[in-house]
Amino acid sequence: MDQAKLGKILEKMNEQGMPQMIISDPPAIFYLTGKWIIPGERMLALYLNVNGNHKLVINKLFPQERDLGVELVWYDDVEDAVEILSQFVEKDKPIGIDKVWPARFLLRLQELGAGSKFLNGSMIVDYVRMIKNEEEQEKMRKASLANDEIMEKLIPLVVKGYDEIELNKIVRDMYAETGHSGVSFDPITGYGKSGADPHHVTDHTKGKRGDSVVLDIGGILDDYCSDMTRTVFIGEVSDRAREVYEVVKEAQRLGIEAAKPGNRMCDVDLACRNYIESKGFGEYFTHRTGHSIGMEDHEFGDVSSVNEDIIQVGQVFSIEPGIYLLDEGIGVRIEDLVLITEDGCEVLNKFTKDLIVVPEE
Amino acid sequence: MDQAKLGKILEKMNEQGMPQMIISDPPAIFYLTGKWIIPGERMLALYLNVNGNHKLVINKLFPQERDLGVELVWYDDVEDAVEILSQFVEKDKPIGIDKVWPARFLLRLQELGAGSKFLNGSMIVDYVRMIKNEEEQEKMRKASLANDEIMEKLIPLVVKGYDEIELNKIVRDMYAETGHSGVSFDPITGYGKSGADPHHVTDHTKGKRGDSVVLDIGGILDDYCSDMTRTVFIGEVSDRAREVYEVVKEAQRLGIEAAKPGNRMCDVDLACRNYIESKGFGEYFTHRTGHSIGMEDHEFGDVSSVNEDIIQVGQVFSIEPGIYLLDEGIGVRIEDLVLITEDGCEVLNKFTKDLIVVPEE
Repeated sequence: MDQAKLGKILEKMNEQGMPQMIISDPPAIFYLTGKWIIPGERMLALYLNVNGNHKLVINKLFPQERDLGVELVWYDDVEDAVEILSQFVEKDKPIGIDKVWPARFLLRLQELGAGSKFLNGSMIVDYVRMIKNEEEQEKMRKASLANDEIMEKLIPLVVKGYDEIELNKIVRDMYAETGHSGVSFDPITGYGKSGADPHHVTDHTKGKRGDSVVLDIGGILDDYCSDMTRTVFIGEVSDRAREVYEVVKEAQRLGIEAAKPGNRMCDVDLACRNYIESKGFGEYFTHRTGHSIGMEDHEFGDVSSVNEDIIQVGQVFSIEPGIYLLDEGIGVRIEDLVLITEDGCEVLNKFTKDLIVVPEE
Repeated sequence: MDQAKLGKILEKMNEQGMPQMIISDPPAIFYLTGKWIIPGERMLALYLNVNGNHKLVINKLFPQERDLGVELVWYDDVEDAVEILSQFVEKDKPIGIDKVWPARFLLRLQELGAGSKFLNGSMIVDYVRMIKNEEEQEKMRKASLANDEIMEKLIPLVVKGYDEIELNKIVRDMYAETGHSGVSFDPITGYGKSGADPHHVTDHTKGKRGDSVVLDIGGILDDYCSDMTRTVFIGEVSDRAREVYEVVKEAQRLGIEAAKPGNRMCDVDLACRNYIESKGFGEYFTHRTGHSIGMEDHEFGDVSSVNEDIIQVGQVFSIEPGIYLLDEGIGVRIEDLVLITEDGCEVLNKFTKDLIVVPEE
């Protein structure tokens, strides 16, 4: 296990009176051990104890030669994995539980009385993961630059007659062909009304002259995620759409300006939101401004109006305001990732945010 | 909601003294409502109460025009979704919890005291889902026939020089091109030693003369999954590998023979396992014999030595014994899906299980 990361987690456990904890989320286990183990429906539990009695309880089906720097405890498909795990738990002390641990395991652990109190322990890991170390920062820089390049190749394709599903597949192939292990999330390639519905499901819609096209894409490069959005227009742009675009662009700039140490996360959200409201589009900005990102596309730490956490150096999050006029078929979102530095932030995406009209062929 | 399915679930809730239940797993919600809603990290909870006071608590980001036959309760990203849900819960009565519900929601519900006892409620839904109705049976038949066709196209490709990752992508494309919405699971295309390791991760290994090649593939067609495995050989087959193949083939046949109403699930496992043990390969058959399948590749109802549930008409599960001689680089698994009928079972895969040696080019 990475002793620096583990040390920070154990320190916070001590501070918060949580002497033991179960970590089950594969990215969190990767974060500590450097190994991806994807257990599917089977239980995988890293048990941490401030006294140093750490164990990884793992199914025998997974390769057994791994040197993870923690004692491995194996079980097979006919054994009660939670019962085996419970033998290590100090029953008279509170225990932190991974926020994603499925209820079937937690309910069984509770039934076994393994812990005096069951608490969500993920905040501890999440707050440590939120601050990226040098190596992680460098990986996120590289991932976002690669993402910029894919965006540049993608934009001209919006006038080639591909429907959304075809364009989605092309984007996926672009990531596969450029050394990415996958996409960070299902790419959004929404023409017109599709882009104006933030939860539209990619379908066979094709683009037409005047459409706004929302391109929200990201890939996983060397275990770290990129995520960016640009909105472009096919052939022409109406005055109304241009107005919306410029409001979103300025809102996003104001969000970036507010992203600095000492400000709160909600200050970034409010910077975007207040401007959009002042321009009369408040009710059409229907989501939070952004989310933290790292090994996962959505990590702990929302950029929302209710997150009063103070921004810290080393955080990476998205700033992605949008305006969605579903009735008019106009949807605009602009998104960059930012890395918080001593005196502000570094915008990891370098691709232009000037309004782009892609000429029809 | 589908009243027949809902009726069966409410009946079982009454029988088991579980007056209320939370269902959160998207396939289970689809099963009842006919709509796929993929909430990501956001809470989606179908609250069922035997008194008929059903609610679906859902984030405002999801399309709001759906007619799901249940009252919708909306929340937004700055509200406490679990607190909203808890208002409907009868606090002095036990409550069933979906087995996959993430701990962050369950711990919050417990903190709110919303329920006198928290139980794993998924068995109720799972037992209902385990018995496929006519429409589901027909979809599973079609999915497996389509899978047979893909297997037939895939087998000749093992001698074309593709590495595992390339072959994996080709398989994925085959499903995409034949009306599938996706794969049921990450396709396994394991050459030699890779196929001899049941949890090998697809890599750049290429096939060579004499290799066994484990092809474990499945797709999702019209919301239902297929899943089958064939093992073929490149160029030639050693006597040793042939022996292993024939043992697995006969074991699988015996498993199918045991798959009938009135037998127990473990009888299917034991039919395969006892035969493999009698041939001296017991320690190399390292996993359960199979799993139930339907809208998900792995559904409730293992074919394992410890599942004593009586097999019922309408169940669909896999029968997939294997022998893995990692040191010798020989891995063989053969898998079909079976649908339990009045007097035995219908094997949904029709593709041959005779030993295939693919000639090198």
